[in-house]
Amino acid sequence: MAHGKFHGIYPMLYTFFDAVGGLDRAAMRRQVDACIAAGAHGIAILGIVGEFNKMDVIERLAVLNGVAEDIGGRVPLAVTVPEPSVAGQIAFVKAAEAAKAAWVILQPPPVKGAAESELVRFFGAVAETAQVPVAIQNNPVNLDVWLSNAGLKTLNRNHPNVWLLKGEGPVTAVQRTIEETEGAYDVFCGLAGKEMPMSLRAGCVGCVPAPDCIDLQVRLYEAMRAGTPAGEAEAERIHREILPLLHFMTHSPEHMLCYGKRFMAKRLGLGEVHPRQPAILPTAFGTMVADRLGAALPALADEI
Amino acid sequence: MAHGKFHGIYPMLYTFFDAVGGLDRAAMRRQVDACIAAGAHGIAILGIVGEFNKMDVIERLAVLNGVAEDIGGRVPLAVTVPEPSVAGQIAFVKAAEAAKAAWVILQPPPVKGAAESELVRFFGAVAETAQVPVAIQNNPVNLDVWLSNAGLKTLNRNHPNVWLLKGEGPVTAVQRTIEETEGAYDVFCGLAGKEMPMSLRAGCVGCVPAPDCIDLQVRLYEAMRAGTPAGEAEAERIHREILPLLHFMTHSPEHMLCYGKRFMAKRLGLGEVHPRQPAILPTAFGTMVADRLGAALPALADEI
Amino acid sequence: MAHGKFHGIYPMLYTFFDAVGGLDRAAMRRQVDACIAAGAHGIAILGIVGEFNKMDVIERLAVLNGVAEDIGGRVPLAVTVPEPSVAGQIAFVKAAEAAKAAWVILQPPPVKGAAESELVRFFGAVAETAQVPVAIQNNPVNLDVWLSNAGLKTLNRNHPNVWLLKGEGPVTAVQRTIEETEGAYDVFCGLAGKEMPMSLRAGCVGCVPAPDCIDLQVRLYEAMRAGTPAGEAEAERIHREILPLLHFMTHSPEHMLCYGKRFMAKRLGLGEVHPRQPAILPTAFGTMVADRLGAALPALADEI
Amino acid sequence: MAHGKFHGIYPMLYTFFDAVGGLDRAAMRRQVDACIAAGAHGIAILGIVGEFNKMDVIERLAVLNGVAEDIGGRVPLAVTVPEPSVAGQIAFVKAAEAAKAAWVILQPPPVKGAAESELVRFFGAVAETAQVPVAIQNNPVNLDVWLSNAGLKTLNRNHPNVWLLKGEGPVTAVQRTIEETEGAYDVFCGLAGKEMPMSLRAGCVGCVPAPDCIDLQVRLYEAMRAGTPAGEAEAERIHREILPLLHFMTHSPEHMLCYGKRFMAKRLGLGEVHPRQPAILPTAFGTMVADRLGAALPALADEI
Repeated sequence: MAHGKFHGIYPMLYTFFDAVGGLDRAAMRRQVDACIAAGAHGIAILGIVGEFNKMDVIERLAVLNGVAEDIGGRVPLAVTVPEPSVAGQIAFVKAAEAAKAAWVILQPPPVKGAAESELVRFFGAVAETAQVPVAIQNNPVNLDVWLSNAGLKTLNRNHPNVWLLKGEGPVTAVQRTIEETEGAYDVFCGLAGKEMPMSLRAGCVGCVPAPDCIDLQVRLYEAMRAGTPAGEAEAERIHREILPLLHFMTHSPEHMLCYGKRFMAKRLGLGEVHPRQPAILPTAFGTMVADRLGAALPALADEI
Repeated sequence: MAHGKFHGIYPMLYTFFDAVGGLDRAAMRRQVDACIAAGAHGIAILGIVGEFNKMDVIERLAVLNGVAEDIGGRVPLAVTVPEPSVAGQIAFVKAAEAAKAAWVILQPPPVKGAAESELVRFFGAVAETAQVPVAIQNNPVNLDVWLSNAGLKTLNRNHPNVWLLKGEGPVTAVQRTIEETEGAYDVFCGLAGKEMPMSLRAGCVGCVPAPDCIDLQVRLYEAMRAGTPAGEAEAERIHREILPLLHFMTHSPEHMLCYGKRFMAKRLGLGEVHPRQPAILPTAFGTMVADRLGAALPALADEI
Repeated sequence: MAHGKFHGIYPMLYTFFDAVGGLDRAAMRRQVDACIAAGAHGIAILGIVGEFNKMDVIERLAVLNGVAEDIGGRVPLAVTVPEPSVAGQIAFVKAAEAAKAAWVILQPPPVKGAAESELVRFFGAVAETAQVPVAIQNNPVNLDVWLSNAGLKTLNRNHPNVWLLKGEGPVTAVQRTIEETEGAYDVFCGLAGKEMPMSLRAGCVGCVPAPDCIDLQVRLYEAMRAGTPAGEAEAERIHREILPLLHFMTHSPEHMLCYGKRFMAKRLGLGEVHPRQPAILPTAFGTMVADRLGAALPALADEI
Repeated sequence: MAHGKFHGIYPMLYTFFDAVGGLDRAAMRRQVDACIAAGAHGIAILGIVGEFNKMDVIERLAVLNGVAEDIGGRVPLAVTVPEPSVAGQIAFVKAAEAAKAAWVILQPPPVKGAAESELVRFFGAVAETAQVPVAIQNNPVNLDVWLSNAGLKTLNRNHPNVWLLKGEGPVTAVQRTIEETEGAYDVFCGLAGKEMPMSLRAGCVGCVPAPDCIDLQVRLYEAMRAGTPAGEAEAERIHREILPLLHFMTHSPEHMLCYGKRFMAKRLGLGEVHPRQPAILPTAFGTMVADRLGAALPALADEI
């Protein structure tokens, strides 16, 4: 843990839309309040779970400003920056800073084939102008564009304000990244938290999962953090409790949006989910699976 | 050929940037003028060659409006619509119509895993509000999201204003699409025109290549269109002349932007190309190859 | 459940090699005995877990004949047929029949791009000569070559002895296959059994997991099969117990061979594992994870 | 050019099958004779063009021994070694040596995810026992498993008998490999020879194309080799002549087997081609394209 400033569970919010396709501000606020009430250490937005890939920059800014307002400084806000150009990322980082975001998560641009040095330069050019700490979204397993551990080291050496990492991938790969980057990065794991106890043992400082199980994942994290055998045992117990649900939800991003988003809506007491097209439609069987695997999870309160 | 309204060579313009990363309006105008002077039957914008994937919607609108103004009604404008939502595509189509575009080319949204019927519904919802004829960008070989020939037929049946197709892929696949959609679509081939004489024989009404060889590809098209043995022989002669260059340029989209864009800039008499990062950088060897393969191509005039 | 003849847990055996790279017959026998002692309803061989992709046909036949001899008719043997030609698959099916295999699992040949009808014809030509019931290995999510549900129906209609399916993929997809093929197939799920209780609810007749947790997965299956609420609760309890381990093991086929094979070797009381190159090498951290997640699992006895 | 021992055009033979699926020895012999009569500098076998992926090791050995016999020492034979294990590759190399092969081309095993050092070790273990010079099949663009230029250098340093490379990929990448491996390898280009004049300028010593245009590609190579401006011009003229055909044939491996193999059969005066299933079937349109693009190519004589 290089800096230790940020840690814990940052749920990656769903983006709820209303019946005519606009942002459902009330649902978003409900989600923010419930996550904070459940103990979320921070809030993250605009990941794939948040459907950034189905929104243009104007809608992304609306999500950013709306959620920032809803949080109102209660917890740190981490903002994914999915813009596809240096200038676009710089402008979006500025907007995030204006909205009092605590840190930003730069996404690799959707450009295959360039040398890694060019990608380091891309991120560096954005980091140069950032006032808040900078994370990189890195996913060597599922993304086409990513940095090697050597590339991550170079980036941090050239731009010391890049010291956070959203490290997707198997826990063995995440552990190796932590080891090979020699403490340069505070790493949040992803993968829905499906390996969270082990990821924390590997040295991760937190996790950015979908919000479906935010209450239990916060308790899991706090139990691990206690550092006692009893704490670890409790963490693993909780993990076993929710893993079948996490596993089912995460077959693919669209599968998660089909079943996870509706599951979260139920927990939040929201009405019908209006998917952004094109979308996978839920089947009766799939809905039964989600309901059954999540049966033990109560409604999420919006205050403590 | 179902409608026959649009045909011929529509060069897919490069997007030239200035030294600080903004749109280089003068270079764009030069490109438009040169293409029209070379006989282009229309102009296309915002394909992968145009780096839509490195621009946000605001920049895309700037390209649209700038190029529309530069064309000034001299030839039809075909506008790719790369927005990732129904509402975004509808708004962009409206902007294209306001700019007097002749037709629009809808890109599949970047959403994997949904049923084909959902994709048909997505395109249909956009087409419903369009005033201009609608094309679909379809590339079963290289894109993750595409329509089968049966899906294309359904889409045209439900929305008869969808009657154009940008049909990428091997000429054998394009020919099968034309056959299996039973004349529902006027098909422009792509693939840089690397199979153009055969694509036209397969029933394509035109082609949307990069602009590198616009002058020769226009002559090729007109020669084929003459419909005489001498015309076909001349078309094939031109094709053989430029194919080594076309083949070299198109190893990958970024390879094309590295070598093709610089090659076109030379033909246009433009200065240094400012790549949008991250980008493949040209090597001395690669530049030599491009220069040598294109040595016979003269500067492009900006008026006839 | 169309036929009901075969059901339950068929562990897909690891292929253990000796120090010089040959088949370790003693280790294989130990594995067979332990699986049968643990209650396995059958034994499966030559899946990706069994490293068929690192063996030629001669070695595959050695595995087949060795395991068949070791089983000695105690439980049914299901043999994957990974040969890449019709003639090769026919010959391998004959060898399986000669070894008294109960059923065979045809793998799609590694040939991309052919029409589905050609793949149906391929499998049909093999099935035509088979004396034992025939399963298809179908994995629309991870394999390049697969059959649609319509293709599966056609295959079964043309060749009624093809009535078993190894159905990989999310439980929602497996359920849809069962529904859309209208009972034509008895389906064994795969995916390491990571969704087993739900797969059985979806109508699967069994599962073909790696052998790592054979004892607990047999108990899980039997508990589900009891059909009582208590049974289902017990099945889900066992599932939660082992899912963190199953999830860790299955990040990729080579990850499973790196950690799962060594884990199984420990449970079997075998010595050092000799990997077939090239292989992922275990790290200290990864080994710790496997040990910790599997700490509660005892040594596997080789008799009841 | 490090060694200069082998050079020129090595056609990668098609594998012709008879009506019942066995090896058609007469057709193979006809093909060998025609290639040698056309001036082939060597013969290569068991590439993807040769359908190694649809044959088991026994059939591959039959191809090897049959072709070696047919060549009878007239030109050097290069043998692809597609076996998936160290022991399998060693045994196949020995068989190739016994058949008097001049060099072998090791294919990367189909194992994703291992560290590059493990792949270097794999190839090294095979090379250790080889008596003939060893080439690596390397294709960073289309294969899942490949060596970086640094890995290639290490391999050659550890095993100096590995000094040949079948370098697929864009000519710019091949040139960079030649540069970065500092002369350690004599490189044959692939990609059907679609960039042959430029590949030779980049420093390649030869090419391994499909045999379809063997006569013209030999003339192209010899013209380039003359090293005169007239020679280069003639080479480029021939290249332009055949590129439309080469481009059409190579849309995908199966596309090549569908159209290229039948085209070659016609040039050889063979009868019906019996495809190994599953296969793409030719359409009337595709056959017309192949015939028209290849109309100028005469029958291939089987003696000079």
